[in-house]
Amino acid sequence: MKLWQKDKTSKKEVESFTIGRDPEFDILLAPFDVLGSMAHAMMLEKIGLLTSEDLSILRKGLKEIYLEIEKGEFQIEEGVEDVHSQVEFLLTQRFGDVGKKLHSGRSRNDQVLVDLKLYYRAVIRELVEEVQELFTLLQSLSEKHQHNLMPGYTHTQLAMPSSFGLWFGSFAESLTEDLDLLQAAYKLSNKNPLGSAAGYGSSFPLDRTLTTNLLGFEDLHHNVINAQNSRGKTEKTIAFAISGIAGTLNKLAADVCIYMNQHFGFITFPDELTTGSSIMPHKKNPDVFELIRAKSNQIQSIPNTVTLLLTNLTTGYHRDLQLLKEAIFPGVEMTLDCIKMTTFMLKEIKVKEQVLQDTFYKHVFSVEVVNELVLQGLPFRDAYKKVGLDIEKDDFAPNQEKVNHTHEGSIGNLCTKEIKAKMDKAIAKFEFENVDLALESLINIP
Amino acid sequence: MKLWQKDKTSKKEVESFTIGRDPEFDILLAPFDVLGSMAHAMMLEKIGLLTSEDLSILRKGLKEIYLEIEKGEFQIEEGVEDVHSQVEFLLTQRFGDVGKKLHSGRSRNDQVLVDLKLYYRAVIRELVEEVQELFTLLQSLSEKHQHNLMPGYTHTQLAMPSSFGLWFGSFAESLTEDLDLLQAAYKLSNKNPLGSAAGYGSSFPLDRTLTTNLLGFEDLHHNVINAQNSRGKTEKTIAFAISGIAGTLNKLAADVCIYMNQHFGFITFPDELTTGSSIMPHKKNPDVFELIRAKSNQIQSIPNTVTLLLTNLTTGYHRDLQLLKEAIFPGVEMTLDCIKMTTFMLKEIKVKEQVLQDTFYKHVFSVEVVNELVLQGLPFRDAYKKVGLDIEKDDFAPNQEKVNHTHEGSIGNLCTKEIKAKMDKAIAKFEFENVDLALESLINIP
Amino acid sequence: MKLWQKDKTSKKEVESFTIGRDPEFDILLAPFDVLGSMAHAMMLEKIGLLTSEDLSILRKGLKEIYLEIEKGEFQIEEGVEDVHSQVEFLLTQRFGDVGKKLHSGRSRNDQVLVDLKLYYRAVIRELVEEVQELFTLLQSLSEKHQHNLMPGYTHTQLAMPSSFGLWFGSFAESLTEDLDLLQAAYKLSNKNPLGSAAGYGSSFPLDRTLTTNLLGFEDLHHNVINAQNSRGKTEKTIAFAISGIAGTLNKLAADVCIYMNQHFGFITFPDELTTGSSIMPHKKNPDVFELIRAKSNQIQSIPNTVTLLLTNLTTGYHRDLQLLKEAIFPGVEMTLDCIKMTTFMLKEIKVKEQVLQDTFYKHVFSVEVVNELVLQGLPFRDAYKKVGLDIEKDDFAPNQEKVNHTHEGSIGNLCTKEIKAKMDKAIAKFEFENVDLALESLINIP
Amino acid sequence: MKLWQKDKTSKKEVESFTIGRDPEFDILLAPFDVLGSMAHAMMLEKIGLLTSEDLSILRKGLKEIYLEIEKGEFQIEEGVEDVHSQVEFLLTQRFGDVGKKLHSGRSRNDQVLVDLKLYYRAVIRELVEEVQELFTLLQSLSEKHQHNLMPGYTHTQLAMPSSFGLWFGSFAESLTEDLDLLQAAYKLSNKNPLGSAAGYGSSFPLDRTLTTNLLGFEDLHHNVINAQNSRGKTEKTIAFAISGIAGTLNKLAADVCIYMNQHFGFITFPDELTTGSSIMPHKKNPDVFELIRAKSNQIQSIPNTVTLLLTNLTTGYHRDLQLLKEAIFPGVEMTLDCIKMTTFMLKEIKVKEQVLQDTFYKHVFSVEVVNELVLQGLPFRDAYKKVGLDIEKDDFAPNQEKVNHTHEGSIGNLCTKEIKAKMDKAIAKFEFENVDLALESLINIP
Repeated sequence: MKLWQKDKTSKKEVESFTIGRDPEFDILLAPFDVLGSMAHAMMLEKIGLLTSEDLSILRKGLKEIYLEIEKGEFQIEEGVEDVHSQVEFLLTQRFGDVGKKLHSGRSRNDQVLVDLKLYYRAVIRELVEEVQELFTLLQSLSEKHQHNLMPGYTHTQLAMPSSFGLWFGSFAESLTEDLDLLQAAYKLSNKNPLGSAAGYGSSFPLDRTLTTNLLGFEDLHHNVINAQNSRGKTEKTIAFAISGIAGTLNKLAADVCIYMNQHFGFITFPDELTTGSSIMPHKKNPDVFELIRAKSNQIQSIPNTVTLLLTNLTTGYHRDLQLLKEAIFPGVEMTLDCIKMTTFMLKEIKVKEQVLQDTFYKHVFSVEVVNELVLQGLPFRDAYKKVGLDIEKDDFAPNQEKVNHTHEGSIGNLCTKEIKAKMDKAIAKFEFENVDLALESLINIP
Repeated sequence: MKLWQKDKTSKKEVESFTIGRDPEFDILLAPFDVLGSMAHAMMLEKIGLLTSEDLSILRKGLKEIYLEIEKGEFQIEEGVEDVHSQVEFLLTQRFGDVGKKLHSGRSRNDQVLVDLKLYYRAVIRELVEEVQELFTLLQSLSEKHQHNLMPGYTHTQLAMPSSFGLWFGSFAESLTEDLDLLQAAYKLSNKNPLGSAAGYGSSFPLDRTLTTNLLGFEDLHHNVINAQNSRGKTEKTIAFAISGIAGTLNKLAADVCIYMNQHFGFITFPDELTTGSSIMPHKKNPDVFELIRAKSNQIQSIPNTVTLLLTNLTTGYHRDLQLLKEAIFPGVEMTLDCIKMTTFMLKEIKVKEQVLQDTFYKHVFSVEVVNELVLQGLPFRDAYKKVGLDIEKDDFAPNQEKVNHTHEGSIGNLCTKEIKAKMDKAIAKFEFENVDLALESLINIP
Repeated sequence: MKLWQKDKTSKKEVESFTIGRDPEFDILLAPFDVLGSMAHAMMLEKIGLLTSEDLSILRKGLKEIYLEIEKGEFQIEEGVEDVHSQVEFLLTQRFGDVGKKLHSGRSRNDQVLVDLKLYYRAVIRELVEEVQELFTLLQSLSEKHQHNLMPGYTHTQLAMPSSFGLWFGSFAESLTEDLDLLQAAYKLSNKNPLGSAAGYGSSFPLDRTLTTNLLGFEDLHHNVINAQNSRGKTEKTIAFAISGIAGTLNKLAADVCIYMNQHFGFITFPDELTTGSSIMPHKKNPDVFELIRAKSNQIQSIPNTVTLLLTNLTTGYHRDLQLLKEAIFPGVEMTLDCIKMTTFMLKEIKVKEQVLQDTFYKHVFSVEVVNELVLQGLPFRDAYKKVGLDIEKDDFAPNQEKVNHTHEGSIGNLCTKEIKAKMDKAIAKFEFENVDLALESLINIP
Repeated sequence: MKLWQKDKTSKKEVESFTIGRDPEFDILLAPFDVLGSMAHAMMLEKIGLLTSEDLSILRKGLKEIYLEIEKGEFQIEEGVEDVHSQVEFLLTQRFGDVGKKLHSGRSRNDQVLVDLKLYYRAVIRELVEEVQELFTLLQSLSEKHQHNLMPGYTHTQLAMPSSFGLWFGSFAESLTEDLDLLQAAYKLSNKNPLGSAAGYGSSFPLDRTLTTNLLGFEDLHHNVINAQNSRGKTEKTIAFAISGIAGTLNKLAADVCIYMNQHFGFITFPDELTTGSSIMPHKKNPDVFELIRAKSNQIQSIPNTVTLLLTNLTTGYHRDLQLLKEAIFPGVEMTLDCIKMTTFMLKEIKVKEQVLQDTFYKHVFSVEVVNELVLQGLPFRDAYKKVGLDIEKDDFAPNQEKVNHTHEGSIGNLCTKEIKAKMDKAIAKFEFENVDLALESLINIP
């Protein structure tokens, strides 16, 4: 049951090779395929290629299938090529020839494209929601541990006083910034490709603005070649966006793995979240964070995989593009898992108190002491010299209990509110409510 | 003359290895180092760490150096470690000890960071301007060749009628979309890191909001650890942005190389822009576009190079970060070159007329004919069958001179204005005028 | 049932996150785990840590399991952590405490390592065999089409006469060279890591030379830290090797896709191996080769994925290494698929005859004519000038039916035998027979 | 002065864009261009395309130029396109028209190819020599510190006793294995491409076996298309090889950076080889090793850059290939620098004594104690239980001064000789002496 099929059946080997892992990804596109078809049908009726009766039947049928998908009752039957064929097959089986009329004025190319765009829009939203949850947790940990000092390192060498509050808070702010790439990916996903047909448009008088509005797209890819070429470019941008988030998670995980090392010993997790050994009681293997570190590297390798799939290809559809799904679909899933798991683990993190009070750390305070002398009126050069000499004479005993950092974003002034405001602003820009409104009314138009 | 230097001199081998290619990049940072120092000095005076006299001298001295840089008279002298040391050295040489006071409340780390951010802001603006110029050319080529038909390919197989207008226009719209990634890179570059010191803030009561405003930054990295960790993240995002543009240029170049192939023969360039051979007169080697294709691949490899430099590194400065410049500085330069060269070449492109009128291309029109029959009232299925049979009987002679595509973004309706509006909107979001205003007043405050 | 487990059960989320896709890969390691255990048991008996009775029971039990695996009757039961635990579990269930004695003197780390090495050795062999089959086909196609001329391109521009024989033969020789990287990967896989324990050796007097011989390894990783660090390095080298083969397949596929384009029209495949459309009868989409092109790019992205997983990690095991399987196992599978599919398709390739006899191609022969004149005694400069003038006057009519290229490796002298000899030599270097001998006797020792 | 030039001069912009960074790399190819020309000339004479007088003049002229290159007196003059043109220009200038005869039977393509192969052969040899020097140092450090214990880590957690001897030795053995990839790269570089002309061979009766022997190549690329396609493939294989070495250096550098951290404190370097601060006396920044870590990542990014340049390109020369030099030439240089710098630094490394005698490390010995009990006859299970209970009761006081690891490759049995033998064998396989012999006699034939 292939739509392009001629008389001869293609050899099984070819079929299995060309289909590849598509079925496992296709099922995820099902609800979006139905939504795309609904909008397309309404547009066809408006331009006179469907009668209003046709439309009425098709809308009913599509809604039926949509509800079956929601209930988990939809599947791609044996011998049916893909999700698009399955939907068409069901419509035709249930309502006869009208099911076939739906394909006028669109090609498999723009049908797949619109499904993908709608799917990406949905998963980006999930990503934003998970980022937000982790962000909130990080901010509360940051507040909770504001006055809990720890050393700050440069060159992996002890350098300056820092705090757990600052450390947690750094990842919170980093996430607000990661949303900018996600926003770029969302914008590209939120453009209607429907009507581009096989990538060169159609001689039917399609109304692309109508389908754009019906599907809640912010805009359309106007140029039809550009619409087709957005396949790949959209995936590349999503790959960049998840690679951005992965960068933040990678650093957090790298920190956790080293801070759990017994020499550092700054943080621990409950036994049931680590692995160990009863004859090596000090050993608490940070498997989860090692895997987050590693998975964030897998995610960070995706932009390159996507680029390799695309590069040097000329304008127009190539079957190569099918394999983009194998890079992006699991990549997004993996990113969601890593964010969730980070949240899950950080809920249970235990932080060591009073780390810096050990004299082992006293030199970490030398700049503090120099600055204090400067604020008391000593020229910097003299203050620096004095502290250097004191240290050399081993006559250096700074206050290791408190630091007085007051400027924006420092230990004593975490700017939690300001950072929260950035997150709120970043999320508001997605305007998810517009999509909700559009899709709800698309599904429920009588 | 190294600021951190103890008694012993480090071995020459170490010095040459650690300095690497920095001098060639550092010189580009010079004006931004001066601007950062101006803002820092004004802030120090406000919080009482400089007298107003100190400030007055420093502002005068810094402006002097700024003008020397503008005139090309500035250089990093033999034995001076880097651009920052050179500026400090000049100040001290000319005005005495006051030159050293400038370093209070900042570290080499946030000084370099602010220089880089200001530099990136400036080169992103150059990128936007070059993109805009290429865009304008592509739009005018698109309009000029609107009715000039050519074949459209899918699977590298002849598929549908397309046009040169559509083809040029596709890259124009693609560029409007590429600005979204560039916007994300700009936003991250446009955040003030000054005051983060060595990455853990300072015990001086710095006023980071003041330097943010003075330098025309849209915002600051509030959290100081996050400010430090933005080194690398900023470069990664810029790498994504130039890789996005490179993707568009790569496809254009790949198309040109194949369209110049003698079998296709769709486009040519004047002899002086190609290479050839007098005994192979048909040969016109598209060297420039082959190199654009290749350079766009070099550019597209940069995100991965940056990611490899960063991954698995813990929080805080590492010397590894120095090498980011070797990836990004030439990468941005190469992107600028490729855009400019594309513009340069496309100004001279010659397009073949009436390509599709050859009967070689007649089957490209089969869908057109089917659709026409449908619009005349024939059911799709019957129309398709009829055309199939006509073709089989070799009785198929479509009109190969014109197509009637009217919907948004198709051959007959290029939406040039709508796409222009997108570009304008995308550029407006950068708000470059804010930076102009701030920097002008920073330099010229008496 | 985890071996390292303390009292508390780890949370389900952690378990599912940490196990990941391991079960699907672990099952492939089962036979090798048994082989490794056989050798380890024999060694333990030799050094006195097992009695000869213990050994006899364990050998019997392991052989039993080995045969179950061969028959497809082995599976990892619900709740059992991994393949190693399953084997141990079966032994203990069937033979009691002796099953647990097997774990003396080895750690999970070197047990997994040896399984992986044995597995890689086996799949590299499969790769070699598939390469050989494709090679043989390419050589026979090369011989068959030796005198079948086609144009050769430089800069994608028509340049010189070539032949299908030359073209097919080029990929044959390329494959002989690809075996060098595969050889490097095989050498690294063919080193015994057993006895490295957790990466720092053991205080038991293990006999590592014995297990090396029993398992048919060519050598051992002597240094135990290096043995552990070979995890990752081995995978990276395999990734390089399959990326090498993928490079050859990618070029072949890229050629096929363009040669099937209607403008070129050099090759075709039977209808059932391509996709098309009854109203676009000229269209024969090369989906299979587009997918080979794309999959070879996925494969070529694997070295980087592996590098990202490994880089900046310190000495010693990290859980990150577990994810190497997700890169390599499917990567090898995909490479096997691509080679097989290339062979499958090329068996059916049809090549156009007498391509070059069309006057469209006459300038392709200009260098031939110049050289002919030179061989007849005309100075090169004069010959070149004459041909140039003839062409300019449109008085150029070369013989387009035959070329006379006689040197090694050119159209008239394909060196098929010499290239075959290279392939034979390259394969002989793997010495697969040594492995066969060792494993056969290991399994069948009474 | 371009050889392909027609009447018109190409625009300056095109010229500067297309030449790019070639001049800085081309100069490195000069001696090899001369050697290739010598062999080509001798072959031309043998097949009658040069008279023996011609040959005599050309050999004299080429040797002259060769000596000028050796003395550093050779340069590419203003307005001369590349190194090949410069050599030709000098010959013609000095000896008249005979200089032009040299170009018969070869194309710029195979001329560049043979230059590159000869160059790569030479730099791979340099790499081998530097690897060998580092190897020797590592082995002597390994022997020197054999009994100097340190902890071994898994999951970055304290795990088992290890030693500095083991640690240094691990990198020595790793280097022996890295030579396998280098060997693969050498084999591919050591094949003669001369005679492939523009990639499709020549109608002159060239004797490719003769030039193969004269230039000391081990073999030739027989198939001429394959010879041309080896451009890119050779570079990719070299990229793999240096990425392999970089992987070893990266791990060493990552270890050093963490072992220099004050919490670990295992190793130090003299002050003049680190950077620090007089008010933070504990701080010794490992800049050199941070940069080796980072540079090894730059190197590890090269395979991907090369792959991106090559992928999806069809058979035959493309100008894209020119940019391979920008990836490989600096990549090899950087690898040489990193190896040398590692050797330079390790000569000065100071290792802490008696690390493990601190009770902080006592649990590291728990497996030792268990194994000891087992060797004394206690069943493993009981021994494990006993040690677990002792630890729980805080009644665990192992001997922390010595371990008794005796098997191959463990602390007490480093197998330094066996590993040395591997290195010797790996180096012998390169058979550098063959190249020496051939080139010496090529240059000195009267």
